[in-house]
Amino acid sequence: MTKPSVSYTEIKKVSNAGITEANDLLAAEEPLEIRVGYGRAGDRLQKNISVTMRTPGNDFELALGFLFTEGIISSIDDISEIKYCTDANTIENKENIVRVELKESVSFDFKNAERNFYTTSSCGVCGKASIDAVKTVCRIETREGNLKVSRELICSLPQLLRKHQNVFEHTGGLHGCALFDSAGNLFLSREDVGRHNALDKLIGACMALKQDQDGAFPFYNYILLLSGRASFELLQKAAMAGIRMVAAIGAPSSLAVETAREFDITLIGFLRGESFNIYSAAHRLIV
Amino acid sequence: MTKPSVSYTEIKKVSNAGITEANDLLAAEEPLEIRVGYGRAGDRLQKNISVTMRTPGNDFELALGFLFTEGIISSIDDISEIKYCTDANTIENKENIVRVELKESVSFDFKNAERNFYTTSSCGVCGKASIDAVKTVCRIETREGNLKVSRELICSLPQLLRKHQNVFEHTGGLHGCALFDSAGNLFLSREDVGRHNALDKLIGACMALKQDQDGAFPFYNYILLLSGRASFELLQKAAMAGIRMVAAIGAPSSLAVETAREFDITLIGFLRGESFNIYSAAHRLIV
Repeated sequence: MTKPSVSYTEIKKVSNAGITEANDLLAAEEPLEIRVGYGRAGDRLQKNISVTMRTPGNDFELALGFLFTEGIISSIDDISEIKYCTDANTIENKENIVRVELKESVSFDFKNAERNFYTTSSCGVCGKASIDAVKTVCRIETREGNLKVSRELICSLPQLLRKHQNVFEHTGGLHGCALFDSAGNLFLSREDVGRHNALDKLIGACMALKQDQDGAFPFYNYILLLSGRASFELLQKAAMAGIRMVAAIGAPSSLAVETAREFDITLIGFLRGESFNIYSAAHRLIV
Repeated sequence: MTKPSVSYTEIKKVSNAGITEANDLLAAEEPLEIRVGYGRAGDRLQKNISVTMRTPGNDFELALGFLFTEGIISSIDDISEIKYCTDANTIENKENIVRVELKESVSFDFKNAERNFYTTSSCGVCGKASIDAVKTVCRIETREGNLKVSRELICSLPQLLRKHQNVFEHTGGLHGCALFDSAGNLFLSREDVGRHNALDKLIGACMALKQDQDGAFPFYNYILLLSGRASFELLQKAAMAGIRMVAAIGAPSSLAVETAREFDITLIGFLRGESFNIYSAAHRLIV
């Protein structure tokens, strides 16, 4: 029995016609703690990696995507098991703690997991350092796929995502993201109250679907669509996965644009109706 | 010379009329590290508390609001100084590290600052525990003010906020929040790429404006307007400050509604045009 991703509540609806009682659907938000088990048999250790406020559902994908985009694992092959912790002692929290078992052969860098991703000890804290941290910490995938798409195709994507945003449709409360192939077909979409969680779930789900000759998912062949704005964090995650094209319905931040340019990711923003802006790597568009 | 909150960049605008080169304005996003100095003279210690991706500007307010809404300080009187760190060794990061000096008399609970706010060791991780943590860790201000407002007044607020969202107006990239008095006058507004940062800046700015007989800012007399959705984190911060009414233009999450009900905060969502939903504490509305 999985936790529900929505909940019902009594509300009052107010309009110029007056006030009415109603039953309303809310997007669920609850904490998820991610723990990593590592070390040799007989000497297994556990480290709490993160607590994030997320919408319940697809929690294992979230954990997988998070560990991958933070550079803690490099593929699903690093993992022997993912499960909900059974030491949770109340009904409410029983599916709010996920433990990911690393294989014995996988080295787990405690310090790296401790350190906030955005800081480096060498240069202090700045936008450039944040980008450098992505480059240093991670094996960035830079393989080029077959993406070459038209304006019309890009403009058709938001409508397709909206059709798949089931919970958003009913609650208005979720961020969505989706991967589309170069023909504009929706491959997979995910939703969450946190936009970074939605993307981790999407990436985590794909990691479990090995496809290319190296046994990895070919993110480089897909377009990532974001229902809202594009922040540094989302571009960082896209870069980690090797995504080559990101289209956001909202605005990008300065650091998101810098990150896209640094990693030659095509970044599109303000994708509305028939028009959009291209912030970087326009060579993958036919216009 | 303060860091700019926007940056210019070259982009390509694509529409069904073709493609044109343009100069565009982006909302700036950069990391801010918050450090706390504490302990007795001659034995001062420093602790890095947080790194957040924020829009530069009002950084001292952000630090102040963050420390207050996380329960680390209880008023501006706990602080002797806020400054940018001078040990930052590059031009890029020189205004990205803020150090807040606690007064010698203020006890700083290292463990409390270490612990992620959303977890408690007793009950594990669940929505209820998150709300309990707010109650336990903090001196929640529950004073009741003079708020009693009409539908018409509530419906007039979004327009007033939009007029003050300067950077959003040009970049489309920022979350905004504002405090309004019970007559519907905008008192103060703040913007940021992160919605939690915008609220911390707003709360921090008010903390520096002592007003009531106790020398604290009377948050309980103001309506908080949020430009987007209402998450647990925003309601938690509002509760910490003693805000009694929160109106969001977007949807609230399940845990935001639970938190509002727990602390008797009036929570309004989907505030659009002439209508809105009331999720809790409807007694402060005249409808």
